[in-house]
Amino acid sequence: MTVERIHQHIDEHFDAHLEQVRRAVRQPSISADGTGMAEMAQLLVDMIGEAGGTGELVSTPGYPIVYGEIQVGAPKTLLVYGMYDVQPVDGEDWSVSDPWGGEVKDVPGFGPCLLNRGIFNSKGPLIHFFNALESFRAVGEPYPVNVKFMIEGEEELGSPSLPGFVEQNKERLQADFALFPFYGQDANGKVQMYLGFKGPYFIDLIARGGDWGGPVSRGIHGSNAVWFHNPAWTLVHALASMFTPDQKHVLIDGFYDDIVSPSAEDEELLAKLVETFTPETELAENDVRRFKYDLTGVDLVRKYLYQPSLNIDGINAGYTGEGSKALIPHEARAQIDIRMVKNMRPDHMLQLLKDHLERHGFGDKIEVRPHDGYGPSKTGYKNNPAAQAMAETYRQMGLEPEIWPHLGGSAPFYLFTEVLDIPVVLGGLGHGGRPHSPDEYATLEGMKLAEKSYASFLLNLVA
Amino acid sequence: MTVERIHQHIDEHFDAHLEQVRRAVRQPSISADGTGMAEMAQLLVDMIGEAGGTGELVSTPGYPIVYGEIQVGAPKTLLVYGMYDVQPVDGEDWSVSDPWGGEVKDVPGFGPCLLNRGIFNSKGPLIHFFNALESFRAVGEPYPVNVKFMIEGEEELGSPSLPGFVEQNKERLQADFALFPFYGQDANGKVQMYLGFKGPYFIDLIARGGDWGGPVSRGIHGSNAVWFHNPAWTLVHALASMFTPDQKHVLIDGFYDDIVSPSAEDEELLAKLVETFTPETELAENDVRRFKYDLTGVDLVRKYLYQPSLNIDGINAGYTGEGSKALIPHEARAQIDIRMVKNMRPDHMLQLLKDHLERHGFGDKIEVRPHDGYGPSKTGYKNNPAAQAMAETYRQMGLEPEIWPHLGGSAPFYLFTEVLDIPVVLGGLGHGGRPHSPDEYATLEGMKLAEKSYASFLLNLVA
Repeated sequence: MTVERIHQHIDEHFDAHLEQVRRAVRQPSISADGTGMAEMAQLLVDMIGEAGGTGELVSTPGYPIVYGEIQVGAPKTLLVYGMYDVQPVDGEDWSVSDPWGGEVKDVPGFGPCLLNRGIFNSKGPLIHFFNALESFRAVGEPYPVNVKFMIEGEEELGSPSLPGFVEQNKERLQADFALFPFYGQDANGKVQMYLGFKGPYFIDLIARGGDWGGPVSRGIHGSNAVWFHNPAWTLVHALASMFTPDQKHVLIDGFYDDIVSPSAEDEELLAKLVETFTPETELAENDVRRFKYDLTGVDLVRKYLYQPSLNIDGINAGYTGEGSKALIPHEARAQIDIRMVKNMRPDHMLQLLKDHLERHGFGDKIEVRPHDGYGPSKTGYKNNPAAQAMAETYRQMGLEPEIWPHLGGSAPFYLFTEVLDIPVVLGGLGHGGRPHSPDEYATLEGMKLAEKSYASFLLNLVA
Repeated sequence: MTVERIHQHIDEHFDAHLEQVRRAVRQPSISADGTGMAEMAQLLVDMIGEAGGTGELVSTPGYPIVYGEIQVGAPKTLLVYGMYDVQPVDGEDWSVSDPWGGEVKDVPGFGPCLLNRGIFNSKGPLIHFFNALESFRAVGEPYPVNVKFMIEGEEELGSPSLPGFVEQNKERLQADFALFPFYGQDANGKVQMYLGFKGPYFIDLIARGGDWGGPVSRGIHGSNAVWFHNPAWTLVHALASMFTPDQKHVLIDGFYDDIVSPSAEDEELLAKLVETFTPETELAENDVRRFKYDLTGVDLVRKYLYQPSLNIDGINAGYTGEGSKALIPHEARAQIDIRMVKNMRPDHMLQLLKDHLERHGFGDKIEVRPHDGYGPSKTGYKNNPAAQAMAETYRQMGLEPEIWPHLGGSAPFYLFTEVLDIPVVLGGLGHGGRPHSPDEYATLEGMKLAEKSYASFLLNLVA
């Protein structure tokens, strides 16, 4: 059988496939500061060519999008979405000498793993898809579907250019299914499927001295704190005014108003989900000892999935080096993000935030600078052939998927669910973790499973 | 007359004297990270030798103290206190190419100025004192007094080693007067005298994930903010709980309890002080447009001098670089300082702070790490021959001093006023500014006045 020959090829040529993964992850590509972005985009254009297609770089106001097509004359077409940018590694303490070294190391409990920025989020899964295509070629089988690629370089920035690209290229992006390759297994090997995402909105808050008080142009000696204002205090008070001290309830008026209850299909999925969902795994994977809420089962998961959040990603002001420095800084900054659930709209949330600051007397003291964001997304299961093909793949490989109505994290899937209207699935086998953290990793064993799952998925799409 | 010959020498040899100043300020000496500290200490030992005395480095648990003596057989002895450490320049934007270049540049309103870290705080005044001594030698006059030097390298760290040194060296530190050389003129040329200091206390607050919640060992993905705690929020709420949003009132129980009212002599000084005190100058020198308080005259100055303050010198957590990073940091830090007025004690304030955090539920979430501090100090005027000699110097040079009961800033003068019991004065002519800020400066014109004032002061001490 075709699938067995392909899976066998993947087992027998894993070393060569792993080198392809390394080729991609060793190339830094940090959208936050631009490092290696052009080189990485070109590498993907090359890989699309090696897979028998044609890739190109499409200019955007930001980093170019890698667009590609492999036309094999098949009746159906799959659109693969991916990203080639990764997070910075500044200030992170890795256990390997180089976060870009592609080093393989035994990780207790997981066996040999590749540790590298971007292996999990999200170069590993994307390259496994290319390796799956290679396996069809190697055994002399045609690809079951035509493939289109849309790989952006700004996912870690909130995908600012992707919506414009999709709007302007609706025609050539038409496809029958869409896939976002992703390691779908948790630390225990359980496979998870997510039928949507929350929408992130990143906003900088910048408090500065001005007509209201505080130093305007430079930090000044801290002994003046008794009679001059400090923008760092202003920022601290503004932030504190938005959230209860127990970190459970956002105090911005209207913040929760647009939330809708889970649908009937979602409630069904939740009831099934909690049969296999293990809160302990979530704690262990994040090295956290306690949830905010004393909830269990469906209540805990419902809180996680159907509540929006307000987070401080970073805050910085004044002197934070060694020793002491008595200082009133003239500027204090925080990056916050609002993570929106279904029915919440970025522009509306921004207005609520601005209204809150105005009402609390911070309007003239704090600049609100939104920089990236997009809305939440939701797809169904029963009416989604891509999701069905992926679930079938898992079952063929002996794993019953745990299906999540959506994920707490974010990806701009509203472009598929709302704009392009293509059935979309996020998935594949494999396990990795620690996105945005030091020692981001993926297991070698999971990599083989990932490649096999993509091969099977392609066959299942047209079965 | 002696004083005229010396003043003439200073005018005629200013270029050479300026080179001495540059010799000192071009040598970085950053106690926060150790840069150049040993070289700077040795330079001062050399200068004491050049002035005809003997200097040595006395070991401490931190940076050594430069101790020196110039014995000329005079009946009276002056102890000169100074510091050889300066603030870091990290992240500061200077208008000269090198904050350690000793560059002279025209500053609008001030004419030619030397811009360099440490010129104002406090190498410039100290070197002018040495130049004044050189002038006595050059014109063939003996020094009017014996001179002792105690120059520490940890003033910017809160002088942690100085108290121990003073306690252990009470005998050899005995003197009839003490002087801390300082540029005493404000931006308009007005001369100010300060009869004491507030006491600073620097404390780090470090919020970390732990048994209570939050990530324990590394930053994790921000999408978890909905169900995991964030130490940055914890720190923000803890800080906000300590201070009213209008930044006027500290909310730590007992914070203001130990304050005492101004003495009768202080009230006399305040009444005279406000005849010449110009709030506009304070605003302009700090590039601040508004005081916290709608107060004027004695009320404003009383608030400035007799109120303690709680300041955020710096705060840092999570990702604050370019672009976006969805992150829950596992640690968030702030450096705060409490600036104490007469009668407040560092240990007691620390306990009040800890009690406050405990009472507000932050006891298990935030580490309180005090690192530097000492108490406030106060001397009188009428009973202080050093202050009288300095005031007489100002008047001889045509300037009526504005006498402040104490300064809002800090120096460990309690060692003179409480431990050694030596009449002490802070002063000298000259003008500079922007301590702890970019473009720290001193005027060249003021430098000449400074050197002349030290020469006159030495003569006035024994007149």
